[in-house]
Amino acid sequence: MSEKPNEISQDGSFKRQTNRFTTPFGQKKEHLPVEADRYRLLWSPACPWAHRAVIVRSLLGLEDAISLGTTSPMRPNIGRVDWEFSLDEQNQDPVLGIQYVSEVYLNADPEYTGRPTVPVMVDTETNKAVNNDYFNLTNYFEVEWLDHHAEGAPNLYPEDLREEIDEWSDVIFQDINNGVYKCGFAHSQKAYEQAYDQLFARLDELEERLATNRFVHGDYITDTDVRLYTTLARFDAAYYNGFNTNRNLIREMPNLWGYARDLYQTPGFGDTTDFDSIKRHYHLSITIDPDKKDTQILPKGPDLTAWDVPHDRERLSSQTDKFRR
Amino acid sequence: MSEKPNEISQDGSFKRQTNRFTTPFGQKKEHLPVEADRYRLLWSPACPWAHRAVIVRSLLGLEDAISLGTTSPMRPNIGRVDWEFSLDEQNQDPVLGIQYVSEVYLNADPEYTGRPTVPVMVDTETNKAVNNDYFNLTNYFEVEWLDHHAEGAPNLYPEDLREEIDEWSDVIFQDINNGVYKCGFAHSQKAYEQAYDQLFARLDELEERLATNRFVHGDYITDTDVRLYTTLARFDAAYYNGFNTNRNLIREMPNLWGYARDLYQTPGFGDTTDFDSIKRHYHLSITIDPDKKDTQILPKGPDLTAWDVPHDRERLSSQTDKFRR
Repeated sequence: MSEKPNEISQDGSFKRQTNRFTTPFGQKKEHLPVEADRYRLLWSPACPWAHRAVIVRSLLGLEDAISLGTTSPMRPNIGRVDWEFSLDEQNQDPVLGIQYVSEVYLNADPEYTGRPTVPVMVDTETNKAVNNDYFNLTNYFEVEWLDHHAEGAPNLYPEDLREEIDEWSDVIFQDINNGVYKCGFAHSQKAYEQAYDQLFARLDELEERLATNRFVHGDYITDTDVRLYTTLARFDAAYYNGFNTNRNLIREMPNLWGYARDLYQTPGFGDTTDFDSIKRHYHLSITIDPDKKDTQILPKGPDLTAWDVPHDRERLSSQTDKFRR
Repeated sequence: MSEKPNEISQDGSFKRQTNRFTTPFGQKKEHLPVEADRYRLLWSPACPWAHRAVIVRSLLGLEDAISLGTTSPMRPNIGRVDWEFSLDEQNQDPVLGIQYVSEVYLNADPEYTGRPTVPVMVDTETNKAVNNDYFNLTNYFEVEWLDHHAEGAPNLYPEDLREEIDEWSDVIFQDINNGVYKCGFAHSQKAYEQAYDQLFARLDELEERLATNRFVHGDYITDTDVRLYTTLARFDAAYYNGFNTNRNLIREMPNLWGYARDLYQTPGFGDTTDFDSIKRHYHLSITIDPDKKDTQILPKGPDLTAWDVPHDRERLSSQTDKFRR
């Protein structure tokens, strides 16, 4: 019925497209200039890659410097993959005046044929996408946007830990963040099982690490925890059944589950986590199943109030503040 | 794409078809005569309704009196819903010489237009379906087939408990056995949520009951436990993700989970439970999703070795034998 999507390789495995707009933010001439009130960050609460940037923006207090445009979790039914501003009046982002995220991609590159993705930073002077590099965006916020951080903002990317954080960022991307997609989008049993094994091996390793570490790198929340959190928050509600990652639920892994709740109960995490959007996107949106079905039922479970249950993870830390300032 | 199936009502709820062949086994002239070596029971290990009859046949030692024909868990891809003997040589049941279960239905009623279902008892003298009444079949085995029970066979349907058992049979059918199908086959969100709420309310009630009762009616396994077991055995492996019954897994309900393992570890239950067939049927067979998909991935989880973990339920009973003889 539908053709094999571009991002599926010959062996049936999912190979995520590379990002088109990767110019870094920075001080040099060839960089994107760091400037308050100039960029608009587009996201969907459903999307883990965009959620990551929104959490860091919140933790660092960058809300006043970088504005936020929010798309619907439901893909528009227009014969192509896109994100739509259907939550806004007249289906338009009030600042950019666009209906679809693809518009800022095409403004920047009329030849753009990839999937328009979030997060994307848009220069409001030109209405062009300037950076959709989700992998590095939080690091730019942490390092290059330092002058705009709120007073007392945490240090999520301390210099003495950067090497370690970068190593984990890569591993978490390969095996977990993108690992769940490699399970869910696989077009062959072999590619699926390989991704599944890798995913759970890494989760098992983290489960052990988090038995003694409050956060991945010890007593303080870092960029690594943000990256890990966005997948954990979607796991039981969406991936377990939607992406066939069903060895076990996260809430069946006591350390990971306590850790995830610890983060969820921290301002910046839980208050940017929209389970309803997550569920509707992964279960009802046509991304997962491009062949439209007769019926689209939204699974009622799981019970998400469990995220508010106390986590008792303070015992693993000698610090009273979970952020390094 | 496909038309609304016959068994979906106007409000989107699933209404299971009634059984066509319901003549009881018995002593009277209008009954089906009870006779060893005459009938063949057709089943698929995937099907909970058929599994029920196979468990009781095994517990009562009726294997020598009633032979068994086994269909594949995978629906044949022939443009209609059927069961196929593709596990047998030349794709034929060696006794009846048929490829599809529908053949014995049509032999008995050339006008038959319903789904051919298992379990079905076939009279080998005529190759005709004579009884597909899954609801009452185990009770016939227990009462009418008494003379053919093995020596020391358990009494699964004791006279003093029949009224209570019958009440539970009805409740378990409505809310649990068929309840999961009402969730999975619903064509409206409302019908789905109603079935979901009913299902979990009943499971919660049983979870409480089984805190003090080893089995539903106390110290002994009865027909009720067989009915409940066949749905529990399929819940985590199939229904939770395939039928959207995802409030929680059965293995997250300690009493029901210990109870299910207690039964699983009893001869007649676990040795007739074929998780591989169950998973392949519910996740890959077109019954669930009549619109063929591009890819059909078999979920690798959950970990089914957990069924062998000791259950520690003996503490709830003062009896050494879990069967009344």
